[in-house]
This record gives sequence, C-alpha cells and structure tokens, in this order.
Amino acid sequence: MRISPLLADLRHGGLPGLGADTLAGTITAILLIPQALAYALLAGLPPQIGLYASVLPVIAYALLGSSRTLAVGPVAVAAVMVSSALTAYAGDDVDKYLTGALLLSALTGVMLLAMAALRLGWLANFISHPVLSGFTTAAAITIIGTQIPALTGLSVARDALPFELLTHLAEQWRQINPAELAWGVAALMLLVLARQPLVKTLTRVGVAKNTAAILSRTAPLVLVIIATLLSTLLDTEARHGVRVVGAIPQGIPLPTLGFIASDGWMALLPSAAMIAVVGYIESISVAKVLAFRRRERIDPDRELLALGGANLAAAFAGAMPVAGGFARSMVNFDAGARTQLAAIVTAVWVALGAFFFTGLIAALPKSVLAALIVVAVWQLIDLHHLRLTWAFDRTDGVAQVVTIVGVLVLGIEPGLLLGAGTALALFLYRTSRPHIAVVGRMAGSEHFRNIRRHPVQTFPGVLLLRVDESLYFANAPFVENELQTRILETPNLRAVVLIMSGVNGVDSSGLEVLTGIERVLAETGVALHLAEVKGPVMDRLAKTDLLRKLAPAHIHLSAQDAVNAVVGGPQG
Amino acid sequence: MRISPLLADLRHGGLPGLGADTLAGTITAILLIPQALAYALLAGLPPQIGLYASVLPVIAYALLGSSRTLAVGPVAVAAVMVSSALTAYAGDDVDKYLTGALLLSALTGVMLLAMAALRLGWLANFISHPVLSGFTTAAAITIIGTQIPALTGLSVARDALPFELLTHLAEQWRQINPAELAWGVAALMLLVLARQPLVKTLTRVGVAKNTAAILSRTAPLVLVIIATLLSTLLDTEARHGVRVVGAIPQGIPLPTLGFIASDGWMALLPSAAMIAVVGYIESISVAKVLAFRRRERIDPDRELLALGGANLAAAFAGAMPVAGGFARSMVNFDAGARTQLAAIVTAVWVALGAFFFTGLIAALPKSVLAALIVVAVWQLIDLHHLRLTWAFDRTDGVAQVVTIVGVLVLGIEPGLLLGAGTALALFLYRTSRPHIAVVGRMAGSEHFRNIRRHPVQTFPGVLLLRVDESLYFANAPFVENELQTRILETPNLRAVVLIMSGVNGVDSSGLEVLTGIERVLAETGVALHLAEVKGPVMDRLAKTDLLRKLAPAHIHLSAQDAVNAVVGGPQG
Repeated sequence: MRISPLLADLRHGGLPGLGADTLAGTITAILLIPQALAYALLAGLPPQIGLYASVLPVIAYALLGSSRTLAVGPVAVAAVMVSSALTAYAGDDVDKYLTGALLLSALTGVMLLAMAALRLGWLANFISHPVLSGFTTAAAITIIGTQIPALTGLSVARDALPFELLTHLAEQWRQINPAELAWGVAALMLLVLARQPLVKTLTRVGVAKNTAAILSRTAPLVLVIIATLLSTLLDTEARHGVRVVGAIPQGIPLPTLGFIASDGWMALLPSAAMIAVVGYIESISVAKVLAFRRRERIDPDRELLALGGANLAAAFAGAMPVAGGFARSMVNFDAGARTQLAAIVTAVWVALGAFFFTGLIAALPKSVLAALIVVAVWQLIDLHHLRLTWAFDRTDGVAQVVTIVGVLVLGIEPGLLLGAGTALALFLYRTSRPHIAVVGRMAGSEHFRNIRRHPVQTFPGVLLLRVDESLYFANAPFVENELQTRILETPNLRAVVLIMSGVNGVDSSGLEVLTGIERVLAETGVALHLAEVKGPVMDRLAKTDLLRKLAPAHIHLSAQDAVNAVVGGPQG
Repeated sequence: MRISPLLADLRHGGLPGLGADTLAGTITAILLIPQALAYALLAGLPPQIGLYASVLPVIAYALLGSSRTLAVGPVAVAAVMVSSALTAYAGDDVDKYLTGALLLSALTGVMLLAMAALRLGWLANFISHPVLSGFTTAAAITIIGTQIPALTGLSVARDALPFELLTHLAEQWRQINPAELAWGVAALMLLVLARQPLVKTLTRVGVAKNTAAILSRTAPLVLVIIATLLSTLLDTEARHGVRVVGAIPQGIPLPTLGFIASDGWMALLPSAAMIAVVGYIESISVAKVLAFRRRERIDPDRELLALGGANLAAAFAGAMPVAGGFARSMVNFDAGARTQLAAIVTAVWVALGAFFFTGLIAALPKSVLAALIVVAVWQLIDLHHLRLTWAFDRTDGVAQVVTIVGVLVLGIEPGLLLGAGTALALFLYRTSRPHIAVVGRMAGSEHFRNIRRHPVQTFPGVLLLRVDESLYFANAPFVENELQTRILETPNLRAVVLIMSGVNGVDSSGLEVLTGIERVLAETGVALHLAEVKGPVMDRLAKTDLLRKLAPAHIHLSAQDAVNAVVGGPQG
C-alpha cells in the first residue's frame, strides 16, 4: 500500500493540474466555509469548531485517501448524530459537551482504523442502500425540525424528536420573534432563488452553464457576508433581540490532548461506531460515483484508513467528526479538481478565513445559518428513492419505511439500528422459506424450467424438483416439509431428481434433510438423483455417506443427464 | 384444527390398543417417577414439584398434542435453565424461588401459545442443530458439574459455572463426606451396570431383548426403593450426616393462582422465551423422529399449542416447566404406545405415587438422585456429532464449539444466545462473499460449468459468469467488485453473459449492481446478456429500466441460447 496516493500522483504526473486544482479548491472553500459554521451549530457546537474540522482533517484525508476528488469536512448527518450523542452524554454541561465532541472524533477515527486493520470494511455492507437512504431522509427531516427554533426565535430542547417539536411549536407559537423569523425566511428565500432560478436566469442571459452553476454555489458565502453587514448596520441583536453568532476566537488552536484524560470513552463508543459506519458508507458511495466517472478505482480499506486518519486529526485539532460530503465533492469534481491538491487549497482558504475573517461575523444572525442548513439538507430528502424501492422490492421498501419511522419516532441511533436489523431479519425470513419449483424440459432443448410458467415436457413417475436457495439450518425444516409434500403428491413415483443449480451451499442441517429424504425414498423403492450440483457444494458432499450411497450413478452434471439415466437413453 | 387428536383417535379407532397403551404408560411411569424427583432437585425445587409436573401437564399434552407417543414432563435441560434463571431472580429467597418457578411455567406456556397464534414456529429454526447439539452437550456437562456437590457432600453456590466448580472442589476436597460419596458412587455404579451390562447378561440367559431393555429401564425406580429401605435401616441421615430428601407432602395440591400477583413477569420473560424455544425444539425433534417411524406427520403449530397448554397446566398445578423428553418418549414408543392414552396411564400412576408413596421416600439420600441425574444426562453429551459437524462444515463446527465454550464459560442462556448469534453471523458472512465462477460449455452438451474444474469450451471475447448467490445488500459491493475485476481481466471483450441459475433473489442493491455493470459495459460497447433468470427473479426485474434495455434480445432462457445469440447460430 502506498503511503500517500497524493504524493504518488504529484511525483508521477508532475503538477499539470495545478491551475485546475487551485480553482476547484477555491470554489469548494467558498461552499465549505458557511457549511462548516452551520454544521457546527447543528452539532450544538460553537461555529469555529466547524472551521477547525475543515483544515487538518482535510489535509489528512488529502494525503492518505484513494479518492482524488472526495471533499472531506463536517457533514450534516454526522453533525446531527453528534448532537444526538452529546445531548444524551453531556446534557447542559458545555465543557463536557465540547470534550465529548473531541472524544467522538477520536473514537470515530479509532473505529475506522480498527476496521481497516481487521479488514472489516464489509461490515458496512450490512447497512443496505434502502436503509441508508431512509436514514438520510429521516435524519434530514429531523435536522430541519431542529432548525425551526433557530428560524423562529423559539427555544425547544435539543433532543426533542420531530413530533415532540411540533407540539412544542403549537404551544409556543405566540412567542415567535418576528425579526428572527424575518431574517430566517428572507435567507431561505434567497438561498432557494439562488439555486435553479438563478442558474436558469444566468444561462438565459448568456452565462455558460458551468459558470452559472458555480456562481450559484457562492450564494451561501455571499449571503453570510451580506447578512453580517446588514445585521451590523441595523444592530439587529440589540434592537430586535435576534440571536447572533457572537464573538469567535480568531485563528486555529494548537493541537490539544486534554480530552484524552476524560472518562467518556466507553459511554460514547456506540455512537462513535455508528458515526464511523455511516460516515464511511456516505464517503465511499460518493467516492465510488466520482471515481467511476473517470474510470478510477477506490480502495475500500484505504478509505477506512484515510477517514480514520482524518477523524484522529479532527480530534487533535479540537474539532468534530468529519466525513466526505456529497454536494461538496460534486462541486469539487465539477469545478475540475484532478487530485487532492484541490483539498489542500480548500484547507488553506479555510485556515486563512479562520485567521483573518471569523472575528468579523460576530453579528451574523443564527437564523441565517439555520436557513443555510435547511436548504442544504432539504436535498437529502429522497422520497423518489422510496417509491422506486417500494415498487421493485417490497421487502426493501418495508426496511426503508421502518428506518424512516424509527428515526422520526425513536431517534437517530435507535432508528438506524432498527432499520438495519429489520433489513437483515427480512432477508433471513425470505431465505427461510425458499421457492421450490417442479420443473420439466423445454421442448427441443436440454433446459428445464418451472412447469407452472413454461410449456414443458414431464416424465411420468419422475419428479424433477428445483430448490431455489442454499440449504441451511433456517430453511431445513421448511424445505424438508415441502419436498415430502411434493413427493407424497406424485403418483407412481419411481425417481426424484433434485436440481441443485440454485443451491449455493449445504450446511449440516441441509445435509440432514438430503440424507433423510434419501432414506425415506430408498425404503419405498424410489431412487434419488442429484443434478447440477455446484463445485463447492460437491466438494463438501464428497466426504459424506449420502454421496457414497448415490455416486456415481445418481449424480449428474445436468438435469438432462439425470433424465436420460432415469427414463433410459437420450431419446427422453 | 381438531380440538383433540387423542379423542379423534379413540373415536375413529375404538380402543384396540388399550392393552398396549396401558403397558407402555406403566413402563414410562416407572422411568418417569424417579426422573421427576431428580429433575426437580436439579431445578433447585422440592422433589414433589417434579411429580406435579408429571400429572396435569401430561394430561394436557395428551389431549392437545399431535404426536401419539411423545412423553411430556420435567426434562434435564429445561430444569437446569430453570435453576439458572431462578438463582439469578430469587437468590436464597425460597418462597420467591418457588413462585418464580410457577411464573416461568406460565410464561413458557404463554410464549408457546403466542408463537402458535402468530405462526412463529419457524423462529425456532434459527437455532440450528449444531448449535442445539452443542448447547445440549454443554448443558449436560454443566448439570453433571452441579451434581458433584450432592454426590460428595460439599456445598457450592448453585450458580457456579463448571470451571468455578472445579476450583471450589479443589479447595474443599478435605471436607468430603465419605458416607455421602459412598452412597453416590454405589448408586452410579449400579445404574451404569443396569444399562448395557444388565441387558447383555439377561439376553445371554435367554430373556427376550425387548424385555431385557424394559427391565433395564426399571433400574432407577428399583434403586430408589432399595436405597430408601437401606437408608432407613442404617439411619444414615443421623449416623453419617448424609443429606436425604426429607418429608414430602403427600397428594397433589389444588390449582393455585397466587403466583399471578407476583411482579416477576418481566424479569423472567427472557428466560421463559429461551425455555420455550429450547423445549419446543427438543420436543418436536423427538416427535418427528417417532412419527416418521410410523409414517405419521407432526403439525408444528399444533405442537406449539399443546406444549403451551401443558406449561400453563404446569403453572396451575404448582409445577415447573415441561417438555417432551427424549429417553422417556423412546421408552414409551418401544414399549408399544399407540396413542396418548399411554400418557394418561402414566399420569395416573404418577398421581397414585404422589398420593400414596411419596411420604415413604423421606430417607432417600439426595446423592442417589444426583447419581440418577448424572447417568441420565451423560447420554446427552454428544462429541461424535461435533466431530461429524466439524468434518462436514467448518462453519457449523465453529458455531457448535462457540456454543459449548459459551455455555461452559458464560452460562446457559448467554451461551445459547452467543451460539445462535454466531451461526447467523457466519451464515451472513458466507452469503456476503459468494462464489463466482467463470464457466464454459461441457463438450457435446448444452451444459456450462466452471472452467477451473471441468474441461470446457470457451468463446473468445465472451465472458460467461455464474454468480452463486442471491444478489442482496450485504454482497452487492463484493459482487460488483468481482464482476468488474473479471471484466477488466478479459481481453477483447464483446459480450458478458451472467448466468443467473444460482441467483435466487435480487433486491434493490442487487439491481443497482446489475444496472451499474450494464451501464459500464454499454459505454465501452460490450453487450450484457442474462441467462437462466429464475421465474421469481424475472417477475421482479420485469418492471425495471434494466430489463427494458436488455429485453428481449439479451435475455435468454438458457446459457446455450445466450451463447448462440452472441457467437451466432447453434453451431457455437
């Protein structure tokens, strides 16, 4: 494994893309800075924590990661998971909350590195796309809910679930601060207008489509600057009681290790594990999509390592957990990034911003950042995917709906666990009741298909059965019962042919079923034949008494061979 | 569903087997009475509780069950599970312990009835045979461990794990009561001699083999009677400090409902669920084996109902949980039982015993009952099965070893959960990394097999791939990666044929993989073909964009058809 794909890129390719990377990194920084401030607030942390998470961690990923265009930093879903974990952990204790954030970053990093070391990246596959999509949708709805207080001037407990929030709002709506609401709604409207409407208008007046899209992406930063200036001019904090970001310490703190002495490690471990898995899946999904567009490959283990390193860097930089952001990486890619040099340019811009400009945004109303969050996460709500999933596979659809309802009703982490558990349980349930078909031969071929679906030739006294699942403990009693039933139903039976093309594995319970069926059949003078047994299955059966009884006369490469053997000769 | 299979049997068949059933029921009672006393002690309960569990519950099962020969009552594994659950629940509080036993019976009954009502009997299939066998073996070892104190006169905490027990014994061996040890060892030796050696001797002197086997089964009761007489004569309790059974209340108590007011319901629910599942699996396994011998069928849902009823009856009779016993049912069957009338005869004998004879066994040394338990459960230790499992399927072997070690180190319930969880995790891991074969055509056939295993014909520029697993979320990334690798490795590729004979299902993650592969291939001018797609999979794919792109030209019934389409004409 190379130590740094980026350094290898630079050594082999020289710096031909330096200009492109600088431009892309700059555009990404313009998008990232306001998002970083906003997602820190979403996590319940001071806004500068988001900036800290956008410098060292970004550089760490740039040096270690196998994706050339993934843009790492604070992301909305991880931020709300941080908020949910820390509200339970620290309550109103501000110091404990902040220390907890660093612990979470460190633990997330350690979990990812451990998964890399133990080659456990495949564990993440057990959270299916439908579950992840449902989780993201429900998390986005939860996030929008958490921003309603900031947008309206009301205060609601940080850990309120969406439906609790609605009742709170219904009770308190008279206390809405009209000025705060005005700031929020105005910001929301501007951000919405700056998306599709602005791009359309700009292209209509002759601006290139790509340029228009990039200009649209500058809207959040422009909004932050204008809102800060306007708020200072109007003195809106003092005059209208609008809550503002307040004084932010300038610069970037030196690495701190004080949090290591904290005793919250065990308490935060489960949350960190979930942030690690969700962050990893999100990052690798984006990275794969982007790599695929340029015919590059992503190394999953390398990504675990790089994200682990980025999160450890976050902990030492005094920042919140990070992951690859979808929108941000898309912008980076579309803006022409060729290597992770672009990310380093981004990090330099964020650092400069932290050193020179953060002091200036003290007057920025928090409701403007809330509007920014709402518009950013609105795009994560994907009901279209839910419709598609539901139409294609009811089981996946159920798992997705359970995840959404679970997150909205039970909260972020229990909802995710419930959804992932439901998907697994439904898969297991399905494999425990496999499809079993009685088959016959398609006219003029050696191919055998279900007699209920195709016009096929059957052979009197010969029962051809195809089991469409591996034989394993959870379906052994079901398969045994089904086979017995089909056998009892067939008149004048003289041979049973089990077509094993769909049987990808046989465990010892499956072997018991086959052995039992053979014994029953033998006692009544009926022959059992096996056909199309796969190599790996045959390897295992080879050692058994069952095969010693059947082989070689009753074991056939193809169903056709079996029929020839049973009814005599290839005439069928 | 018939209300009572037994009544139906009697109505349709008259009473032709009355004599056979009476004899079988009597012989079963001779085996059951000493076992009932012993297993109650094993559960940490007064011996008469075992007798109570052998009357009403037996009658309830006899009326409701679908097995004609299953003999229900206290069983060793359930007894040790009761002991483990109640020691944690009640500690040294004798009243709470006894009330807890009734609660456990009631909860076990309710769980079984709920499983029957919700048709959840299949859940029990998720405890595989290897796990159950390992569990039984480890439980038997645990049980033998728990009897060592009773056999030696030492006292050790009831909830000591086997390895803790050994250290206790090593520390305390000087306090062994020689008289108690003598009773125990003598009883052990007599019981062992009464098995194979006695049967062999009797048959050698001309006794019929069946009669000899039945005589051998009377040994425990004969031993109990002789030991009681001898102990009374020697006054062994007063003279040698040997612990005896003591006064047992005569008769059978009226149904009690006082335990319902207890507040232990929630605390005991998990243990009851496990006793219900283990008891159900054990019972239905024996019932199936016996029914199969007479070509009868067992109705799993009916068994849930009947065992549920039997356990509710146990609760109301003031008794411990019950299940179908293996040895006991075998004896009943071998002794010629035709219907559950035999069980009613057994129950009548146990009730008579409880009314007239229990007062007489006060002087019976407890170490004799301990010897009885040890000899009975010794046969449950099945290392032969472990060797077979290990040889056939390493995965099952690992699950079995984990179960055994788990039960011995962590205890009965955690060990069972760990084992069942391990079996599931290993199954899922296996399905997450499926076998994928490059195949070619067997000479002179239309059958396609792995090019690494068989001498097959291949077609230049055509990649024939067979995926040996359903495509689902947990293996989607792995399959995608494998397919991409094989595709990149093949020179001058013009067509890829995916042979879907082993793909028993495709969920939405699997569909994403197929769609993605199709898109990559299409962009490089390579055609994707699907062959041998099963009916249920095709039904689902039919609605998708993927199939609209591929069908009908690229969808083939057989691999041969696909090859014909790709290389032109049936000449191949």
